Amino acid sequence: MNTLATIDTPAAVISQRKLRHNILRMQEKADSLGVRLRPHVKTTKCAEVAALQRDAGATGITVSTLKEADQFFARGFTDILYAVGMAPHRLAHALELRQLGCALQILTDSIQGAQAIADFGREHRHVFEVLIEIDTDGHRSGIKPEDAALLPVGRVLHEAGMKLAGVLTHAGSSYEFNTPQALADLAEQERAGCVRAAERLRSAGLPCQVVSVGSTPTALEARSLEGVTELRAGVYVLFDLVMRNVGVCSGDELALSVLTTVIGHQEDKGWAIVDAGWMAMSRDRGTAKQQRDFGYGQVCTLDGQPIEGYLLTAANQEHGILSLSSGVSADIAERFPTGTRLRILPNHACATGAQFPEYQALSDDGSLQTWGRFHGW
Amino acid sequence: MNTLATIDTPAAVISQRKLRHNILRMQEKADSLGVRLRPHVKTTKCAEVAALQRDAGATGITVSTLKEADQFFARGFTDILYAVGMAPHRLAHALELRQLGCALQILTDSIQGAQAIADFGREHRHVFEVLIEIDTDGHRSGIKPEDAALLPVGRVLHEAGMKLAGVLTHAGSSYEFNTPQALADLAEQERAGCVRAAERLRSAGLPCQVVSVGSTPTALEARSLEGVTELRAGVYVLFDLVMRNVGVCSGDELALSVLTTVIGHQEDKGWAIVDAGWMAMSRDRGTAKQQRDFGYGQVCTLDGQPIEGYLLTAANQEHGILSLSSGVSADIAERFPTGTRLRILPNHACATGAQFPEYQALSDDGSLQTWGRFHGW
Repeated sequence: MNTLATIDTPAAVISQRKLRHNILRMQEKADSLGVRLRPHVKTTKCAEVAALQRDAGATGITVSTLKEADQFFARGFTDILYAVGMAPHRLAHALELRQLGCALQILTDSIQGAQAIADFGREHRHVFEVLIEIDTDGHRSGIKPEDAALLPVGRVLHEAGMKLAGVLTHAGSSYEFNTPQALADLAEQERAGCVRAAERLRSAGLPCQVVSVGSTPTALEARSLEGVTELRAGVYVLFDLVMRNVGVCSGDELALSVLTTVIGHQEDKGWAIVDAGWMAMSRDRGTAKQQRDFGYGQVCTLDGQPIEGYLLTAANQEHGILSLSSGVSADIAERFPTGTRLRILPNHACATGAQFPEYQALSDDGSLQTWGRFHGW
Repeated sequence: MNTLATIDTPAAVISQRKLRHNILRMQEKADSLGVRLRPHVKTTKCAEVAALQRDAGATGITVSTLKEADQFFARGFTDILYAVGMAPHRLAHALELRQLGCALQILTDSIQGAQAIADFGREHRHVFEVLIEIDTDGHRSGIKPEDAALLPVGRVLHEAGMKLAGVLTHAGSSYEFNTPQALADLAEQERAGCVRAAERLRSAGLPCQVVSVGSTPTALEARSLEGVTELRAGVYVLFDLVMRNVGVCSGDELALSVLTTVIGHQEDKGWAIVDAGWMAMSRDRGTAKQQRDFGYGQVCTLDGQPIEGYLLTAANQEHGILSLSSGVSADIAERFPTGTRLRILPNHACATGAQFPEYQALSDDGSLQTWGRFHGW
């Protein structure tokens, strides 16, 4: 039996117990708000994880690349929302997926983009299902709810015979807040803006069934989702130190950690050198600008208990430097002898997971299953 | 024929012309200093690139993981130095490689580590070839040249019948400098410290054939490598914006770029949204603390010419935000219409390459070859 004591390091370990808890927590939240949950599988790119989300009640999945759509479709997922603005050169790929039976929905936020979809759809006698991306917090893409461009985009699609499925927004700026009230306010802004865009389309005689919102922090702190039909969220499935700083999870809900081995020391500096560098942790330093900076990660014992004060304070490609975040630990080599196995909680689960070809899924009995994840485009 | 205009994006593009130029430049430098060159293949993890380095005169390769050793050995590379401190649990893997005919050299920097190698070697009646890691700049692992622990480490290995092959150092702090004189001084410190450690071992009657030093900046700025037998360097093969800031390459020598497509705009903010986010660029922000911050990368035209002032200023997982680094570009949508293809020069070639399962190797005639790279451990 493979265990945390026997497998090679570094390895990306998912606690199955915490994973299931997190899945249930978000599903219950969506249920209580009366909306469908469409998890964003870009976090794990792992069919086993998505299957657990589906089994818990999720309706369809959200993807960030057409490769994810290909891979999940091949694993039996047919209701797929591609939540990145459609590049014209990818329409042939989207068409191919739809012709194979994948209910792929696509996204646009401009007249130019809508026209490209309409032209390609008509040329190939195909009715694409399209959502319009709405910008409710100014952080990335989308049309503002009151923007004059909204109705023309809808009309271009509708009048060309495409299926104008609805509107979608993502309040990604939620990562910058850290109080329940600020997140609840942003969730309301996200909801209200997206519902307003839907109302404008409907008032103009255009169809708009789907009103899709979400980010992990706003999803968890939303108090009402009136007028919304579906919620999207990704990182909640694993959580991470950034989400802990945002305040939407406890330290005990972090389901992903990186298993590492101590390979040496610099005793005068209070350093233990471990075999998890930035190649394993990723270069994500998302906690650097939050109220608590965890360096490249929080050091935990092999059974997952945080060792207060010890962080991965620096990282080279295959070397991590483990030290006390304040001051020099005089007993570093005695405390963490060469060969010691530890687990590091990452800043950002999406980025850290992407460094690994697979997860090691840990059961309560200590056994591990290998769950693959997709890489590349 | 696949070209930059036809392949899907994002993609990691290597200019074969620049690659060959960079390989030749470092090989000539090593030749002129009278030392062997042992490239660090962790930068590309690509057999085609390593073969070009070998064909240009390199002697053996350096790796950062045993998976790299496995993969390169399977592709015909037999002279391999594993330049990360040996974890005891990996000795069985190293033994297996050596028994298959791989001339794998391993590394240690402690009595405990040396003892583990000696014990395992004796138990399996195998003579490992071992280098002692020397710390010449305080940035990571290794024994200081004058440290009392050096000779006992050598003796543990030698007296157990292991082959004490030599000493190795890596002045990784060279990335923090940016003048030829500072780099030349550090190169001399790296050389002198490693040679001194070798002399101490030899004076104690211990063998020490190999004196291995290097980092890309110190290698390129070293004025003498007297007493050194081999030079190691990695990122020179592609170069990147960090190396440009360090001052060891020109902008025209950067061989790696990320091909991307414009997928939308926020005109009022002067943003073009591209499909290269941090998943493509990596989260490496190595230029943030240098004299010139390139954000997530320098924007170039499809034929690789930098567009002055335009950077990837922010990144989400699959979205990059392209904007003028100073002020708002009023004509962003006219200048970069949806569908426009661009190339982004990355901060750190090792980190960006790792985000891709393969490289697209660009020939002078515009054709592309796919070169695989290894992922994971």
